Amino acid sequence: MLTVLTVREAQRRIINSLKGKLTEIETISVEKSLGRAVAKDVIAPYMLPPFARSTMDGFAVRAADTFGASDSIPALLKLKGNILMGQEPPGSLEPGEAMEIPTGGMIPAGGDSVVMLEHCEIIGDQVAVYRPAAPFDNTIQVGDDFKKGELVIPSGRSIRSQDIGILSSMGVLQLKVYSRPRVVIFSTGDEIIPPWMEPKPGQIRDINGSALAALTEESGGIPDYRGIIKDDKITLHQAVLEALDEADIVLISGGSSVGTRDVAVKVIDELPGGGVFFHGVSMKPGKPLIYGTSDSIPIFGLSGNPVSALFSFLLFVRPALRVMQGLSPFPPFVPYVEARLDTNLSSPGGREDYIRVSLYEGSNSGKEGDNNIRARPIFGGAGLLSTMVKGDGYFIIPRDTEGLPEGEKVKVYIY
Amino acid sequence: MLTVLTVREAQRRIINSLKGKLTEIETISVEKSLGRAVAKDVIAPYMLPPFARSTMDGFAVRAADTFGASDSIPALLKLKGNILMGQEPPGSLEPGEAMEIPTGGMIPAGGDSVVMLEHCEIIGDQVAVYRPAAPFDNTIQVGDDFKKGELVIPSGRSIRSQDIGILSSMGVLQLKVYSRPRVVIFSTGDEIIPPWMEPKPGQIRDINGSALAALTEESGGIPDYRGIIKDDKITLHQAVLEALDEADIVLISGGSSVGTRDVAVKVIDELPGGGVFFHGVSMKPGKPLIYGTSDSIPIFGLSGNPVSALFSFLLFVRPALRVMQGLSPFPPFVPYVEARLDTNLSSPGGREDYIRVSLYEGSNSGKEGDNNIRARPIFGGAGLLSTMVKGDGYFIIPRDTEGLPEGEKVKVYIY
Repeated sequence: MLTVLTVREAQRRIINSLKGKLTEIETISVEKSLGRAVAKDVIAPYMLPPFARSTMDGFAVRAADTFGASDSIPALLKLKGNILMGQEPPGSLEPGEAMEIPTGGMIPAGGDSVVMLEHCEIIGDQVAVYRPAAPFDNTIQVGDDFKKGELVIPSGRSIRSQDIGILSSMGVLQLKVYSRPRVVIFSTGDEIIPPWMEPKPGQIRDINGSALAALTEESGGIPDYRGIIKDDKITLHQAVLEALDEADIVLISGGSSVGTRDVAVKVIDELPGGGVFFHGVSMKPGKPLIYGTSDSIPIFGLSGNPVSALFSFLLFVRPALRVMQGLSPFPPFVPYVEARLDTNLSSPGGREDYIRVSLYEGSNSGKEGDNNIRARPIFGGAGLLSTMVKGDGYFIIPRDTEGLPEGEKVKVYIY
Repeated sequence: MLTVLTVREAQRRIINSLKGKLTEIETISVEKSLGRAVAKDVIAPYMLPPFARSTMDGFAVRAADTFGASDSIPALLKLKGNILMGQEPPGSLEPGEAMEIPTGGMIPAGGDSVVMLEHCEIIGDQVAVYRPAAPFDNTIQVGDDFKKGELVIPSGRSIRSQDIGILSSMGVLQLKVYSRPRVVIFSTGDEIIPPWMEPKPGQIRDINGSALAALTEESGGIPDYRGIIKDDKITLHQAVLEALDEADIVLISGGSSVGTRDVAVKVIDELPGGGVFFHGVSMKPGKPLIYGTSDSIPIFGLSGNPVSALFSFLLFVRPALRVMQGLSPFPPFVPYVEARLDTNLSSPGGREDYIRVSLYEGSNSGKEGDNNIRARPIFGGAGLLSTMVKGDGYFIIPRDTEGLPEGEKVKVYIY
């Protein structure tokens, strides 16, 4: 049962185990949809914009009427009237005619372009146009944003501010999204007490419960923190069994000793329809991850060491939360800050090393492409959460690399 | 009044105008503090951890007793007992003694290190130790996370998951933070109707109201969208006047025509204690930004063009929201994805160009440091929000650059 997998292989097995395990689809108001995962393609119900608009203050014209116009020989057009914002133009534009139009105004039928105010002059009931217009100049045409039937927002994308704007512009007020997965969180450990209690010698306050709840929230889940469970097989079994009624995902953190880890493994293995998929990942921190399911509900056994638990969340729980909402396990493009390592760093190889760093502005090395940003590793074991609190992010030393020299470029993921 | 500023200068003037304009300080529960801006340094109230702990299952020893131990000549120590999780050790460790200890167990007085279980053997009432320990081996010492009085979280930082964890571990349950700024949002324009209405010819549904509300929320503010106001000086004046009673920031979007822009400028200038600081920024999109204050409450006049309004928000409103919560105007390190431009691109120079792009995986160019990611510009004016909906992010062509060749590396900020 104790197979130590690579990070990639562990992620693959988790994702495979969740095939088809989507949360329920619910309908929510577009206004409240920021960050939510779209469950059904949104198709443009009509052309957007539905009418051609001017992007300038000026005169709506038929471009052909202005060909060859210049300062010395302006095109003289009949001023047919004034287009008002939010209103239909006063009739259509016949050859030889122009209408005054504000930015955002509706282009009249027959008109195809707008000449800027600065290049026109009203002379009596005529307009002198001093510049030629090409068709569509200074206009937004019907369907320039989206054509009727075009895919506007595909399912499997999470909603951004601009998406909310475009949905509003189409009159879409409600949206089908995947429910936020409910994540039941347990802390285990006989030494762990709630944050509001005063520790006696040998006791420490729970760190992981609140931090994992915050990560869950940040990752689109609904945290359901159920407190501290004794390191005891029967108690944990009972608590997890109850959780499974409501949970989409169960997180059990704690149990860093071999004995307590074994308890978590046995509990997961003995749940109804339960089984441990793997135990151990070749990474540091985060090696003692346990993953299993019970009736296809995923259960993660995270280390009691907070740094380890938090990295396991980022690398394994977050992708699971995404997949259950119909998203790709990883965002297609994850942003980073490139920095130069400010010291030599060794790594034993054979595992991925997640190095926590502080970033700072250094002096320019003179190397090509240098942005002056330096990364200073923060050393300390998986039990020291200060290594994450004091730092700005992390970079990865791959499995096949035994160390990096000072000055090496690394991609730092901000947390 | 119409001074077109550089982006940097416009940001500087906005930030300067907000000196000392912090929102109220409120006390909130640490559990609910994710993303909130800390208003008061958090100092470690005692050593963290408050006692030395083991990071391994093994035996607590005095390192000096194990010097020279080897497989052939183990150190033989008296087994004094068993340390239980969450409990005080059964007495102190005298020279020549060892105690069994689980991971996370409390190191007994007199002990300074732990030898792993694998390197020890219990023989009757003795422990044979086959490896020497150095002082502090396999332990976390008192104060290794934070020393008493050490700065844990400085004011001016926003709270992350790991910060919530460390606060919990210190028994800190409440936190002083700056209130979320209330952002009153108006859309103006005689052609604008609410998203739930059916547009008549010449009318369009409000895009900016909902998108700006979402950006506000994402940036830590509380959106207070007050709907659509007629493009009329008296109506707008009255609406803004009422808003100022409750607003920390006022956003007026709309008015892309010269006439309506003038209305916004006049309204801001004629408010009590009011004044327009500048009007126009040398960037595209986003040029027609108006900035002013009334009795030192910042008021932004954003373009009616949605792309323009959204970029103005990102570049100017978001820094203002940060500053009012005691944060630096910009995060110290903003992550990005480096990509190679997949086409030649010209830019007129003299302004910053914000180019919306789609990212995709290309084939490797063979160039050093190439990550295969390509950026394809999405062309279209500031009136076409589809340029942001279809894209992944943007990069900036600086003012002094007149274009970029295909293959050039650009930093894409994901949105």
